[in-house]
Amino acid sequence: MSSSAENPEAAGFKFEVLATDPTGARLGRLTTPHGAVDTPAFMPVGTAATVKGQTQQDLEDLGVQILLSNTYHLYLRPGHELIRKLGGLHKFMSWPGAILTDSGGFQVFSLSELRKVSDEGVTFRSHLDGSEHFLSPEKALEVEIALGADIVMVLDECIEAPSAEARTREAAARTLNWARRSKEYFAQHGDPARQMIFGIVQGGTYGELRRENADALVELDFPGYAIGGLAVGEGHATTCEMAAIAASRLPAERPRYLMGVGKPEQIPDYVALGIDMMDCVLPTRSARHGCLFTAQGRLLIKNAQYIRDERPIDESCGCAVCRRYSRAYLRHLYASGEFLATILNTHHNIYFYLDIMRKIRDAIRFGKLEKFRTDLQARLK
Amino acid sequence: MSSSAENPEAAGFKFEVLATDPTGARLGRLTTPHGAVDTPAFMPVGTAATVKGQTQQDLEDLGVQILLSNTYHLYLRPGHELIRKLGGLHKFMSWPGAILTDSGGFQVFSLSELRKVSDEGVTFRSHLDGSEHFLSPEKALEVEIALGADIVMVLDECIEAPSAEARTREAAARTLNWARRSKEYFAQHGDPARQMIFGIVQGGTYGELRRENADALVELDFPGYAIGGLAVGEGHATTCEMAAIAASRLPAERPRYLMGVGKPEQIPDYVALGIDMMDCVLPTRSARHGCLFTAQGRLLIKNAQYIRDERPIDESCGCAVCRRYSRAYLRHLYASGEFLATILNTHHNIYFYLDIMRKIRDAIRFGKLEKFRTDLQARLK
Repeated sequence: MSSSAENPEAAGFKFEVLATDPTGARLGRLTTPHGAVDTPAFMPVGTAATVKGQTQQDLEDLGVQILLSNTYHLYLRPGHELIRKLGGLHKFMSWPGAILTDSGGFQVFSLSELRKVSDEGVTFRSHLDGSEHFLSPEKALEVEIALGADIVMVLDECIEAPSAEARTREAAARTLNWARRSKEYFAQHGDPARQMIFGIVQGGTYGELRRENADALVELDFPGYAIGGLAVGEGHATTCEMAAIAASRLPAERPRYLMGVGKPEQIPDYVALGIDMMDCVLPTRSARHGCLFTAQGRLLIKNAQYIRDERPIDESCGCAVCRRYSRAYLRHLYASGEFLATILNTHHNIYFYLDIMRKIRDAIRFGKLEKFRTDLQARLK
Repeated sequence: MSSSAENPEAAGFKFEVLATDPTGARLGRLTTPHGAVDTPAFMPVGTAATVKGQTQQDLEDLGVQILLSNTYHLYLRPGHELIRKLGGLHKFMSWPGAILTDSGGFQVFSLSELRKVSDEGVTFRSHLDGSEHFLSPEKALEVEIALGADIVMVLDECIEAPSAEARTREAAARTLNWARRSKEYFAQHGDPARQMIFGIVQGGTYGELRRENADALVELDFPGYAIGGLAVGEGHATTCEMAAIAASRLPAERPRYLMGVGKPEQIPDYVALGIDMMDCVLPTRSARHGCLFTAQGRLLIKNAQYIRDERPIDESCGCAVCRRYSRAYLRHLYASGEFLATILNTHHNIYFYLDIMRKIRDAIRFGKLEKFRTDLQARLK
């Protein structure tokens, strides 16, 4: 929304498109009650109200403006009511920046022992203790309202990939129905000056379904839109094709979030499709497995070739880790199973991702995203 | 030594006693090639060239002036020759402050599968891969010279506690013989402007043995002295009794290091005996088990009573953790097995220890250690 008058439901928020690149990429700014988010933005994942291995001060130092936290995990532990009583997720984890929570749907369908899906919702068992729980669109929002993230997602049905068209159509229809109920629940119980609710486009790898689903979702008039169910094994070209179809049907003045992406070299592709927000566990999870991103590609720090290597991870990187530590030391820490390996590796990888986003925003500003993409992909592929 | 002229072997170092308290406690300053160390000093343990869960910047922010690293671990992994080639331990781990390395003896006798002890040295198997190694006084120093710590310890024979007097006497005699060989080796191969070598008083819980051993060790004229083989189950009163006997025989103008102590409430007792340096895994290891030190005693963060507790760990603590995070959040992190639990708990506990040392130094300066001790022990016991 370009002004709050145009969309009274999102009075506490503002999304501005500041520049557009010939590729279609957008430079923007999303204003939230917890600060501005420069877009295109990458959101590090803080599953259990912590980005694994980083202090909140580290995240501030890295320039993180928004992070993602997982409703499924926080609902199970420590519980959304506890977090609500303690003043909400920002206060609980002492994070002054913006937060987005997913709906818990993806984890229910991937992590838990799934019991039964119906139009009403999903019954599942906790991966922690086997206890039975029920998640409906309304319940997901009840939890997300209690958590108090700046951006909340509607519950969607996440299906196995690939799925047949009929199955995909059924799930997309259910997700659309759930989006309608979510919007109604939020209108009654939510506060649009405090939280912004995003609908999610589904439709698997079927272009026509994606188009129909996006059009119907836009009819519901969400202040922001996500594109879900992609980057789950369908191949990068298909991801881009589906994201392009969905994005082309979404209103230009609302933020667009492509869920669960991506690899560093793929990010400019998504941005070129007009995507404004992304999240992925790749930088943080890879770090814990000793996989480090550099301007020349990935580096597996456990490899013997780094035993005596006095260079930083990436000689062109300005992060606190590259300014202080050698590959030899980082290899030693990783080989010894030391906590500091995770701390330093994670710090570097998040910096690497955020640095790409900074460079992407600069490139869009000057209409040079295509050149940046070509250069990046030539180096990283 | 009060001046380098008095002890040419330690030209790069200086130890000054700046004030003495009625208890016998000493306020001092140990100058090293890597900065000054205010004494009495507590040395956090950085076993594998890292204090578990803290970055080197964290340690600087905490005001750590000296840390201890374990020769046994670094010898086995990544190897002392590698560290020497990479410029020594300070450069390897990017630590600008002072470092003390133990001799590896304690770990050989406690961690490894011990094969055979003779006057020549110790044959043992690595706890990592079962490989066989031989450690002699000369070899320990060869490793420690390669590592390049500011303070290096001689190899000592560490025996089970309690041990009979005859066995203790035998080990103390062997340790003394090893100290003599260590001194000779260091005179030939070491650089007293770069490293300071400490002898170690042994003698178990036998006062007469402690006295004899200390006197004989002082004859060898080390620039600093440690007291070893204590705080291994003999009870605090006996620890103090033995430390007092040993300390009373050591030259007043040389630094005294009581190895492997202690609990927060015990520290003033050791300081009152004229101890200048201490090390212990207690703050860091306890942190990893969720045991946090406070001005009112220990707090087990996993306990259910902290689930909704919005207070900091310690309301009187000025550390970065207490200024930002609640017990409720820290409990959640610990219960969830998150890395951040170790990071934050360790930071707080080290701060707590260093804060006690700061207060102890202030108390000595004003001749008030007895009052500080009484107050601290009343709170913590």
